[in-house]
Amino acid sequence: MLSKPLPDNLLTSCLRGAGQVFFQPNCATGLLFLAAIAWASHASGNWSVVLGAVVGLVIATSTAYLIDSSRESIHQGLYGFNGILVGVALPTFLAANPAMWACVVVGAAVSSVAVDAMSTVVTRNWGIAGSTAPFVLVTWLLLLGAYAFAHLHVAGMGPPKLATEIAASAATLDLRDVPAVLFRNIGEVFLLGSAISGVLIVAGLAVASVPAAVAALLGSAVAIGCSVVLGVDTGALREGLYGFSPVLTAIAVGVVFLKTGPKVIFFAFLATVFTVIVQGAMDTMMSAWGIPTLTAPYLLTMWLFTLPKQDVNPHPHALTAGARLRD
Amino acid sequence: MLSKPLPDNLLTSCLRGAGQVFFQPNCATGLLFLAAIAWASHASGNWSVVLGAVVGLVIATSTAYLIDSSRESIHQGLYGFNGILVGVALPTFLAANPAMWACVVVGAAVSSVAVDAMSTVVTRNWGIAGSTAPFVLVTWLLLLGAYAFAHLHVAGMGPPKLATEIAASAATLDLRDVPAVLFRNIGEVFLLGSAISGVLIVAGLAVASVPAAVAALLGSAVAIGCSVVLGVDTGALREGLYGFSPVLTAIAVGVVFLKTGPKVIFFAFLATVFTVIVQGAMDTMMSAWGIPTLTAPYLLTMWLFTLPKQDVNPHPHALTAGARLRD
Amino acid sequence: MLSKPLPDNLLTSCLRGAGQVFFQPNCATGLLFLAAIAWASHASGNWSVVLGAVVGLVIATSTAYLIDSSRESIHQGLYGFNGILVGVALPTFLAANPAMWACVVVGAAVSSVAVDAMSTVVTRNWGIAGSTAPFVLVTWLLLLGAYAFAHLHVAGMGPPKLATEIAASAATLDLRDVPAVLFRNIGEVFLLGSAISGVLIVAGLAVASVPAAVAALLGSAVAIGCSVVLGVDTGALREGLYGFSPVLTAIAVGVVFLKTGPKVIFFAFLATVFTVIVQGAMDTMMSAWGIPTLTAPYLLTMWLFTLPKQDVNPHPHALTAGARLRD
Repeated sequence: MLSKPLPDNLLTSCLRGAGQVFFQPNCATGLLFLAAIAWASHASGNWSVVLGAVVGLVIATSTAYLIDSSRESIHQGLYGFNGILVGVALPTFLAANPAMWACVVVGAAVSSVAVDAMSTVVTRNWGIAGSTAPFVLVTWLLLLGAYAFAHLHVAGMGPPKLATEIAASAATLDLRDVPAVLFRNIGEVFLLGSAISGVLIVAGLAVASVPAAVAALLGSAVAIGCSVVLGVDTGALREGLYGFSPVLTAIAVGVVFLKTGPKVIFFAFLATVFTVIVQGAMDTMMSAWGIPTLTAPYLLTMWLFTLPKQDVNPHPHALTAGARLRD
Repeated sequence: MLSKPLPDNLLTSCLRGAGQVFFQPNCATGLLFLAAIAWASHASGNWSVVLGAVVGLVIATSTAYLIDSSRESIHQGLYGFNGILVGVALPTFLAANPAMWACVVVGAAVSSVAVDAMSTVVTRNWGIAGSTAPFVLVTWLLLLGAYAFAHLHVAGMGPPKLATEIAASAATLDLRDVPAVLFRNIGEVFLLGSAISGVLIVAGLAVASVPAAVAALLGSAVAIGCSVVLGVDTGALREGLYGFSPVLTAIAVGVVFLKTGPKVIFFAFLATVFTVIVQGAMDTMMSAWGIPTLTAPYLLTMWLFTLPKQDVNPHPHALTAGARLRD
Repeated sequence: MLSKPLPDNLLTSCLRGAGQVFFQPNCATGLLFLAAIAWASHASGNWSVVLGAVVGLVIATSTAYLIDSSRESIHQGLYGFNGILVGVALPTFLAANPAMWACVVVGAAVSSVAVDAMSTVVTRNWGIAGSTAPFVLVTWLLLLGAYAFAHLHVAGMGPPKLATEIAASAATLDLRDVPAVLFRNIGEVFLLGSAISGVLIVAGLAVASVPAAVAALLGSAVAIGCSVVLGVDTGALREGLYGFSPVLTAIAVGVVFLKTGPKVIFFAFLATVFTVIVQGAMDTMMSAWGIPTLTAPYLLTMWLFTLPKQDVNPHPHALTAGARLRD
C-alpha cells in the first residue's frame, strides 16, 4: 500500500532494492531492512557494514541506469538487492581500507552487469529467477581474490583448510535459546548476527507480505529441527549459519515463485529440509578455499525446485534429435 | 518382449527404473540388476546396499507420481534409476544409522525433483539427456554434508587430501586378471566390486539389447587398455574404478543416443578413451573434498559428444546479435 | 586484405585458426603468431611447444572435417584456435614423452567436439561465443589427470596447495620494466613468457586489425595498473600472468563482440579491471588442484559482459510461468 503511490526515482529504486533481498518491492520494507543493518553495525561496532550497504545499493542501481537496463525492473529494485549484499559482505569478511572500498564499488557495478547476464541464461532460457546469484558470484570472486592480493586483508573468514569429519560436536540447543536463533537465522540473510536485526527484518517483511513473514519463521524453525537431527556444529547453529538459506528457500518456494497450497507447502518443506543438507555440503566445499557459502545453498535448492515445468519431460533413452553424427 | 505386455504400475515402473541405469526400460533387465546388487551385498556382507536400492527406487518413483511428473516417463522408469543409485551409494559410503536412512529418503525424493529440473535445462534447452546427473548432484551433496554433520558417519571414502603426483605406481595387470576386471568395470556402474555382479548385469543387458551388452564389454576393454597406457593406480584399475564411466559412455554414445555406424563407432571410441582421462582428472578434483566421482566422468563426456547438433555452428568472432550495449 | 583471396583448404584453415586466438581469421596474422611461438620455443629451449602448436592445430582442424562440422566455420579457423592452445599448453606444463603426445592428439581432437558442444549451449541458447572454453576445459582435464597418471609427468605447474593470504609481497614494478611486462602480458595469451613474442603478436594483430592491437596494449596497461593497486605477487606480475586474460577481455568486449563507442569503452574498461580480480580469485581456486587458470578469467568476464541482451529483463519476484506445481 505504501509502495504504490511513491514516484520512481533513484531513492525509491534503492529502497525497493533493499526490500527485494526478501522479494518485496516495498520502500517501507527497505527502510526497516536498512534499520536492521544499522542496528547490527551499532551492536558489532563495524559501521563499514551499513556504509557498504548504502554504497553498494546506490552504485548497483546507478550502474543499471548507465548500461540501459530495463527502467521498470530498476524501479522494482531488481538491480539493488545484489548490490546491497555485495556492500554488506565485503566489510564483513575483509578489513576496511581504500582497496576494499574500491572493490565494493567495482563489485556492486559488476553485480548489475551480472544481473543482466544471468537473466539471459536463467530467465530467458530456463524461465526462473537469477535471484542472489550475481551477489554470490561477484562476492566469491572478490573474497577469493583477497587471498591473492596483498592490499586486501582477510578479516572474518578462512583460513582455507581441508574438511575432516566432525566426530563428536553435534549441536546441543537449550530450548531458551531457540527464539534468538529463530530470528538470527533471518538476520543472517543480510549476514547480520543480531536477533534484534532479525526482528526488524520480520517486521519489514510483514509490512509487505504476511505470508512471506510466516514462511520465514516456519523456514527458520524447520532449519533448526533439521540441524539438530543431522548434528551440525553448535556454534554455527547458534549464530544462525544453518538457517538463513533455508529461510529464503521457504519464502521463495512456498510463497513467491509457486502458488501456495497443500502440495506446494509439502514441496517447500522438502526444499527447506534439503537446503540444510546443501548448507553442510557447501561448508565442506568452500572450506578448502576459505570462503563462506553466502546464499548459494538457497540458490541451488530454489533453482532445483522452481525449474520443473508443466510441459517438460526427461529425455527418453533413445536417439537424440538433430545429432550431428548419425552416419 | 517381456516388458511390452506388462501393465504400468508402481512395481513395473520400479523394475524398469532399475533397468534404465543401463538405458533399458525392461522389467527382466531390472530384476537381473537387482539380483546383481543382492549378490554383491551378500558377498560384502553389507545388506544395507540392496535395501537402500529398493528404498531409493520406490521413494523416487513415488515422488514422481506425487509431483505430477509425466506418467509415461514414470512408467518408462525414467524417475527410478537416479533413486536406486542414491540408495546404493549412501550405504556404500556412509555407515547405516537412522540419519543415513533419513537421507536416503530425502535424497531419493529430491532426485526426482532434480530429474524434472535437469530436463528443463539439458533436454528442453540443449536437446540431450540428463541421465544420472540428478543422482550425482544429490549424492555429492549428501556425501559432502556428511563431513559437516555429526550424525552421518563417513565409512567408505575420503579423507579429503590434496592430490600429488603419483610417481611410480603405474598399473600392472596380469593377463589372467583381465576377465575379472572386464566385468568389475561393469559392476561398478552400480558401485558393486563384484565380477559376478558384472556378469549378471551383462546378462540383464543382453535380455534387452545385445548391441548394448556388446558395447559395455568393448567399452570395458578400451578402458583397461587406456588405463595401462596412461599408468593408473593398480588397485583402482583392478577394482574397476577406471572402467565404469567408460562403459556407460560406450553404450550411450555408441548405441543409445547416436545411430550406430562407422563414424559413430569411431566417435564412441574417442569418447570412451577421453572418459578415462576425465576419470583421472575428477579423481584429482574430488580428492580435495574426500568424495568419489560417481558417474560424473561419463556425464561430462556423454554431454560433450551428444551436444553437437546438425544446425549449430560456432559463434563467429564478430558483433553479438542483440547485445545490450552498442552505443 | 591478405586473407580474402586465399583458397580455403587445410593450410589456410590452420593459419586462420592460429590467428583466431586473437579473433582474427587472417593467414598472415596466423603466420606471425606461429613465429612468436617459435621464437619463445627457441628462447626457452623447449621446442615441444611449437611442435605441439602445429600438431594441435592440424589435428583439431582435421577432426572438424571428420565430424562434419560447418565447412565455413572450419575455413574461418574457428576449429583451430582451441587445438593450437591445447598443443601449446600440454608441453608447457607436462614433460614431453609418448603419453603426453598421445594426449595432445586426443585433446586436440576432443577440443573440436567441444567447440560444437559449447556452440549448442552458449551460441544457440545464449547467443554468445564459446571462445577458448573448449581449450580451457580439455586442458584442465588433461592437466588434472596428470596427477593421477604415472606416465604423465608434471613439469611446470603445482604442486596442489591451499591458498593462504599473501601478506607482504605486494608487487613493486620498476618503471623501466613496464614495457617488457606490457608485451609479456600479450605473449602469455599463448603461454609465452617472452616480450619479443609479444611484439610479434602485436604486429600480427595490427596486420589484421589496428583497433584490436590498440585494445590489446590498452588492456595490458590497465591490467598492470590494477595489479599494482591490488598488490599482486611481483613475480607473477613481471611474468605477465596477471595480464593475458585482461588483454583478451579488452579486445573481445571493446572491439570484437560489441560495437566500439564511448559507453562500450567504459564497459570494456570495467570488464578489464574485473578480469584482474577474477585472475586473483581463480589463482586461489586452482591452487588447491595444482593447475593454472589458463584463459578462464577472460572467459568468465567476457561471458558476463556479452550475455546481456536488449530484450531480456530480470525475472520479477512473482509466480514462475508454467511451473509444475501450483496446486
